[in-house]
Amino acid sequence: MRQVAIGIDIGGTNTAIGVVDREGNILYEKQPQIPTPQKKDNPQGSEKISEELLSDFVALLAEEIRSAIEVLDKINPAIEVMGIGIGAPNANYYTGTIEYAPNLPFVGVIPFAKMIQDKFPEMKHIKLTNDANAAAIGELIFGGGKSMKNFVMITLGTGLGSGIIVNGDLVYGADGFAGECGHTTIEYGGRTCGCGGTGHLEAYCSATGMKRTVYELLAKYNNSESELADIPFNQMNSKLVFEAAEKGDKIAKEVFELTGNWLGRALADTVHHLSPEAIFLFGGPVAAGEYIFKPTKESMEKNLLPIFRNKVKILPSSLKLGSAAIVGASALVWKELEKQGR
Amino acid sequence: MRQVAIGIDIGGTNTAIGVVDREGNILYEKQPQIPTPQKKDNPQGSEKISEELLSDFVALLAEEIRSAIEVLDKINPAIEVMGIGIGAPNANYYTGTIEYAPNLPFVGVIPFAKMIQDKFPEMKHIKLTNDANAAAIGELIFGGGKSMKNFVMITLGTGLGSGIIVNGDLVYGADGFAGECGHTTIEYGGRTCGCGGTGHLEAYCSATGMKRTVYELLAKYNNSESELADIPFNQMNSKLVFEAAEKGDKIAKEVFELTGNWLGRALADTVHHLSPEAIFLFGGPVAAGEYIFKPTKESMEKNLLPIFRNKVKILPSSLKLGSAAIVGASALVWKELEKQGR
Repeated sequence: MRQVAIGIDIGGTNTAIGVVDREGNILYEKQPQIPTPQKKDNPQGSEKISEELLSDFVALLAEEIRSAIEVLDKINPAIEVMGIGIGAPNANYYTGTIEYAPNLPFVGVIPFAKMIQDKFPEMKHIKLTNDANAAAIGELIFGGGKSMKNFVMITLGTGLGSGIIVNGDLVYGADGFAGECGHTTIEYGGRTCGCGGTGHLEAYCSATGMKRTVYELLAKYNNSESELADIPFNQMNSKLVFEAAEKGDKIAKEVFELTGNWLGRALADTVHHLSPEAIFLFGGPVAAGEYIFKPTKESMEKNLLPIFRNKVKILPSSLKLGSAAIVGASALVWKELEKQGR
Repeated sequence: MRQVAIGIDIGGTNTAIGVVDREGNILYEKQPQIPTPQKKDNPQGSEKISEELLSDFVALLAEEIRSAIEVLDKINPAIEVMGIGIGAPNANYYTGTIEYAPNLPFVGVIPFAKMIQDKFPEMKHIKLTNDANAAAIGELIFGGGKSMKNFVMITLGTGLGSGIIVNGDLVYGADGFAGECGHTTIEYGGRTCGCGGTGHLEAYCSATGMKRTVYELLAKYNNSESELADIPFNQMNSKLVFEAAEKGDKIAKEVFELTGNWLGRALADTVHHLSPEAIFLFGGPVAAGEYIFKPTKESMEKNLLPIFRNKVKILPSSLKLGSAAIVGASALVWKELEKQGR
């Protein structure tokens, strides 16, 4: 029998579903992805609409999981589905619930794992956590963290997520929600964060944060020569900044310097807490290579206690951008089996 | 047989030695404490002097341990010594070494656990960590953390130490030195820290940090009416600030407000990393009760992501001020036995 796990990633726009084997190979991936229910479909936060959207969404997910298994079964009948791993915003690993997710139309605390379990009563392992935690587990099971017991995963995207591995396992904390480094404060009274706070790391060092830095610098220098000055706010992304930096654009280069400087500060504080062997960076901005790694490393080292200096590696995640979410979610199942010694 | 463990705390001035039973009772304590070798005895950092001081110190410790065991043996011959736990600055749990301790006269990396082992070849468990980690283990084994799997211990003294418990065990990190929250940054470019950095939590919220805040405020307001204005810098301590606050002294009250505000900020970031069930505060300033707990709690809550609010308790440590160091160090042995299921 070839063991596989279902990996599901509930993103803000779309939900990805795939089937992954124990080596991290994706055997099947649903294309196109299915649309995630949108906040705008329940603008008043009605409980009734929440329940309807949720019930339809779970039914659709179950249908797609079944058809994925059927497709694979035709190709290779000797397949055994070991469980379902789900990455979702504000997902609680301990309770299997999605709680007050700010970007989903669902109201309150949703017993998501149980709802999926009801559709697949025979399925043994249905596990839920947030996408950054799932990515960290993916790095631990399949990636550069395989040989490590203590590391931190930082995902740079619309937001800044993190997952913390201590003694070979993910840190979920007392309530199941640990690992929210994106909301540590690096500038008191600084930029507004999506969560309502100010000065959070996420507001500076996510892909969105980099975009904000571009326009802060254009405003500061009144720089009309930068090629970034011709791109509207809503079209800016880290790839464009990287391309401009490659051509020597001053603003673009300073964006990376500042981003690395802020990120390094925050990572130093993470090291002061946890003293990890490595910190993995994942996401679009990572493609910029040394533009982001060099200032980050320098800033982190500068802010570290001497005892921690030149010990902690900052590495690009070895998970692939397109498939990390599914692979990471599936890894929740493999980790569970590993814990049980299977 | 009554099982006991030796607890040793190597402080900056004195070294405490005691014998503790499995319930945390101190059966014997060496009085007066023995003097810790001083930096001033090896001002040039000579390796030869370091070796001499170290060898004398270890010999003295061994002698005192032996006489402690003898004393107890006379009272109760049915005593079994299970191990020696040592709290020391820059102590590495994994390797049993003391590494580059800035306040000790010893040079480089000292194989301290091995040196003690050589004096007691039969002794099974000789474990070393820093004093704040030892306090955290003490809180876990004997104190308010008994029923908890995830908490953080903060010790407020000359410096600010911390020990982190995740999944029921101390976080030592990749190198054995994790848990240095005192050196996370709360004010970039702020006060000079003892470690050479700037703006670190320890420079603001330790007992020493509070002292600095007193004079910063006296300078700011040119306040000659405060009773604290008549006390020299070198005589100030958190007890005097507390007593002044009790009498309504404005400066003293603002010191607590600011200290709590800074500490709460830092603790929020710790919660964003680890989501502990509780944070225990230990040390002199804790005697001030609500003067320190109230602003700390308020500031932490204000700086937390909504998902973590009203979940994390801030509690006074239940370890006693005078004996926590010995009890905590001994707990290293009990934790080790617990891991082995004994």
